[in-house]
Amino acid sequence: MTTVGILGGGQLARMLVLAGAPLGLRFLVLDPAADACAGQCAPLLVGGYDDEAALAEFANHIDVATFDFENVPADSARRLAGRVPVFPGPEALAMAQDRLVEKSLFRELGIPVPAFADVDSRDALDAAVAEVGLPCILKTRRLGYDGKGQFRIRDAGDLDRAWEALGGQAQRVGLIAEAFVPFDQEYSVVAVRGRDGEFRAWPLTANWHVDGVLSASLAPADVPAALTAQAQAHARALAERLDYVGVFALELFCRDGELLANEMAPRVHNSGHWTIEGAETSQFENHLRAVLGLPLGATTARGHACMLNWIGAMPDAGPVLAEAGGHWHDYGKQARDGRKVGHATVRTDRATDLAEVLARVGAALGREAQVQPVVETLRG
Amino acid sequence: MTTVGILGGGQLARMLVLAGAPLGLRFLVLDPAADACAGQCAPLLVGGYDDEAALAEFANHIDVATFDFENVPADSARRLAGRVPVFPGPEALAMAQDRLVEKSLFRELGIPVPAFADVDSRDALDAAVAEVGLPCILKTRRLGYDGKGQFRIRDAGDLDRAWEALGGQAQRVGLIAEAFVPFDQEYSVVAVRGRDGEFRAWPLTANWHVDGVLSASLAPADVPAALTAQAQAHARALAERLDYVGVFALELFCRDGELLANEMAPRVHNSGHWTIEGAETSQFENHLRAVLGLPLGATTARGHACMLNWIGAMPDAGPVLAEAGGHWHDYGKQARDGRKVGHATVRTDRATDLAEVLARVGAALGREAQVQPVVETLRG
Repeated sequence: MTTVGILGGGQLARMLVLAGAPLGLRFLVLDPAADACAGQCAPLLVGGYDDEAALAEFANHIDVATFDFENVPADSARRLAGRVPVFPGPEALAMAQDRLVEKSLFRELGIPVPAFADVDSRDALDAAVAEVGLPCILKTRRLGYDGKGQFRIRDAGDLDRAWEALGGQAQRVGLIAEAFVPFDQEYSVVAVRGRDGEFRAWPLTANWHVDGVLSASLAPADVPAALTAQAQAHARALAERLDYVGVFALELFCRDGELLANEMAPRVHNSGHWTIEGAETSQFENHLRAVLGLPLGATTARGHACMLNWIGAMPDAGPVLAEAGGHWHDYGKQARDGRKVGHATVRTDRATDLAEVLARVGAALGREAQVQPVVETLRG
Repeated sequence: MTTVGILGGGQLARMLVLAGAPLGLRFLVLDPAADACAGQCAPLLVGGYDDEAALAEFANHIDVATFDFENVPADSARRLAGRVPVFPGPEALAMAQDRLVEKSLFRELGIPVPAFADVDSRDALDAAVAEVGLPCILKTRRLGYDGKGQFRIRDAGDLDRAWEALGGQAQRVGLIAEAFVPFDQEYSVVAVRGRDGEFRAWPLTANWHVDGVLSASLAPADVPAALTAQAQAHARALAERLDYVGVFALELFCRDGELLANEMAPRVHNSGHWTIEGAETSQFENHLRAVLGLPLGATTARGHACMLNWIGAMPDAGPVLAEAGGHWHDYGKQARDGRKVGHATVRTDRATDLAEVLARVGAALGREAQVQPVVETLRG
C-alpha cells in the first residue's frame, strides 16, 4: 500500500486523489486550511507549509510527496526531500517560483521569451523599461498567481504608480519588467515526464484568460503540426534540463505564428483539466504514474474538448448535464469572489458539434461572453 | 450540499463515491465491516443493515439513500424509506432478492426465461425436475450470489445429493429449480432510469463467467441491432413495471439467437465497469444522476472496451498500464480467495486493436485463459 502526500489541498489535490484511488493509492493532504476541499476526498493534515512539526508528521505517514501548490517554500520541500522522495524535485519548484530565474532558463534553452529585465530599484525600473519597451508589465518575481502582484505600464506616466504599487516588494521578493505581448492566442503544453525520463505531451491547448484568470480552454488546438511540435520541443527541453518528474504546463503566447514562453507551472494545471474526459489518460493520473515510477499513460485526445472555468460561484449544472458529452466538476468549495470553484468540460467527437453545444450551454447559463471566443475559434 | 448514503461499502460504493465527487456530492457509507474499501474514499459508518440505531444515525446524516449491496433486508430499506428518499425503491429490491418472484415477473412481462419451478419439499423437487427437465440447477430463492447456494443436477442420481445440500434452506429462504441453458453467449443490458421515467441503456455487453463469477466483459457486443433492441426493450419493460430509479443490469443467456432472461441486479453492476472509460457517461455517474433527479448522461460507447476482473489477488499492474488504453482499478482490498479485488479495462478505438492488446496483456500476466474467449470473439 502506497500513500502519496500532497502539499496543498485545493481542487488539484482533490482531482489527484480521485484519479489515484483506482490505482489503489492512499493519500494524505497537508494544507493550512481545515476546510481545504481535497479533505472531502482524503485524510487532511492541517498545518502550515513551513511548520516543521506538521511537515515531520506528514513525512511519517507518506511514501512519496508531490504538490497541489507550487509556492510551498522551497526550504520546506528540501527538508521533506530529506525524508521521502519528492516529485517534482525542490529545484524545479524553486526555479518556477522565480520569474527571473525561469525566464533566464527559457532564454538559456533557446526558448523564445518576451523581453524582460530585473528591477531592484526605481532607477532600475527606468532602465528596464528602456530595455523592454512600452507597454510592459511590472511583476513580482515570486508568489505571483492569477494576475495578482502585477502592474501594467502603458506609458512613462505610469512608472511612478507602478513603483508605488510594487516597489515595496523589490527587496523582499524582487521585481521583473516584462514586455507586453499583443498576442493572437494563448496556448499551453501540458506534459509529463517519468522517473525514467520518458516524456509525453497532450495535444496543444488553446486558452483564454479574463482578468488574468483562465476562463476557457480548447483542445486539441487547431494549429499546424509544426507549431505543436515546436511547443512540445520547448516543454521537453525544459523538463530534461530540470530532470523534471511529473506533470507540468508551459504557457505560451503566439504572435504571427511565433511562440513566446510565458511561464511554467510545476504541477497539474487548470488548462489540462479537459484531459479527464478528453484524453485517454488524464493529467492527474499521469502525474501520479510519473511520481510513482509507473508506465505513463497515452496522452492522445478523444475527440474535442472545451473546459469552462467557474469562478466565484457554481452555475446551474442542468444545461451542461443535459448535453451529451457534458461533464461537471464541482470542487466542493464555498462560493467566494474570484475563487475557482469548479469547471465543466464539454466533449464531442467532432469540432463542429462542440461549437453548437457550447453555444447552447453559454446561452442557457447567460455566459455567452465566456463561450464566445471558443465558439468563434471552432467556427474558424 | 447533498449527502448520498450508500448501504454497503464495497467496490461499487467506492466507484460511486469517485464518480460522485465531481458532482459536488458528499457521501456516507454504511457497512458492517470497519475495513470496507469504500471507507478509504468516504466517511464510513460501521453498523449492520438490520441495526436500527445505525440506520437511524445513517438517515440523520443523508439526503438520499442508495445501495452497493442488494441483499440489504427489505425491511431495513422500507424503514429507511420512511425517513429519506431511497432509490431504487424497496419494492424493486425485494423483487430482485427472490428468484421466484423475479422470474415470475419476467414471465408476466413477456420476457422469455428458462423453465423454472418452485421447490418447497423433496417431493416438489421431483415434480419440478419433471417440469423443467434435466440437466437443471437447484438454487436458493434468496441470498444467492456469484454461484453460491446452487447445485447442478445432471441426472436423477443427483437429486438426493442436491436435496441434502440445499433442502435445509427450503423453508427458510425457499428453493427454485431452473432449467440448465446450454447458451452460446451470456450478455447483460446495463441501463438507467431517471426519477422522471427517462430510460437509457448502454450498448449490450458480452460476458464470460468462470465458476459462477464474472471473468471478462466486452462492449459493445458485436450482435445484430435487433438483438440489442430486444434486450433493451426487456430491460425497459422491467424498469417501467418496477418504477425503477437508478442503474440496474439484466443478465441474459443467448441460445440460437434467442434471449432468455437470467436475473436482474438492482444496482450498478460488474458487467458495467467498462463504462468508466468506454462510455461517455459511466454507470456510476448515471446512477447518481438518476438518484438525484439530474439529467441522465449519454450512454454511447467510446470505442471498444474489455473489462477483466481480478479475483483473489491483484496481478502486476505494469502490463496493463504499459498499453495505450489500459486502465487500472485496484479496490484497495486485502487479497482473499474468490474475492473481487480489482479490474482492468482496456479501451481502443478499433476492435481489431483491442484483440491485439488483450492478447499481449494476457500473455504478459500469464492469464491467457482469461482473455482467450474475448480475443476469439473479437477475431470472429
